[in-house]
Amino acid sequence: MASIFSRIVAGEIPSYKIAENEHYYAFLDINPVVKGHTLVIPKKEIDDFFDLEDDLLGGLIVFAKRVAKAIEKTIPCNRVGVAVIGLEVPHAHIHLAPINTMNDINFARPKLKLSQTEFADIAQRISANFE
Amino acid sequence: MASIFSRIVAGEIPSYKIAENEHYYAFLDINPVVKGHTLVIPKKEIDDFFDLEDDLLGGLIVFAKRVAKAIEKTIPCNRVGVAVIGLEVPHAHIHLAPINTMNDINFARPKLKLSQTEFADIAQRISANFE
Repeated sequence: MASIFSRIVAGEIPSYKIAENEHYYAFLDINPVVKGHTLVIPKKEIDDFFDLEDDLLGGLIVFAKRVAKAIEKTIPCNRVGVAVIGLEVPHAHIHLAPINTMNDINFARPKLKLSQTEFADIAQRISANFE
Repeated sequence: MASIFSRIVAGEIPSYKIAENEHYYAFLDINPVVKGHTLVIPKKEIDDFFDLEDDLLGGLIVFAKRVAKAIEKTIPCNRVGVAVIGLEVPHAHIHLAPINTMNDINFARPKLKLSQTEFADIAQRISANFE
């Protein structure tokens, strides 16, 4: 069965899209640790991040860099932190979160609750800064 | 002034080395969240992970994949998690941690205290599995 992320890529499940190209897709995490928390995935459905073949893995992090630069331009922060955990959805994904303190990327914290309008606004602004 | 990580690469400060090549260096974090917690860095001293040029960044994650595979072979785990935070040492570094639960990569937890013998043993075993 297709992962929830494959269904997002296919447009069967809606997402707040930031950017995509032939191989990768970036969209807002709907359970964000901070505003601007974004997921970057390969379109190819592979469970473990480190099972991606070298070219696809290297390309993924370079694509994530472009997304991170767009997040930094949009959300005031010290830098964009990265996490790959992968215990919940069996489709490799990189978390990108604009952070100012270590606690901003602590997944044990309660997640933010944002309205659809807020999500749409954040996605539109980050997407506009994607180069 | 050289970062603490540049001094480790130069051998001025000792480390429990896992692997290195021309561009990258991997060694145990001495404040580990779990046994096998490893740092992977570019030898070039760049503060922000996402300021690495594309080739160096892509190569870093592919090198980290080889280190992650060695960790997985050594330390029983569900998978190897990744974090890039970078608020403490101004030299880009990837945390790799063998995880079974989300909490295994929670940096807010108290760190493990290991003896020099334990660190040396873990480093030797992971290093022996590095390909």
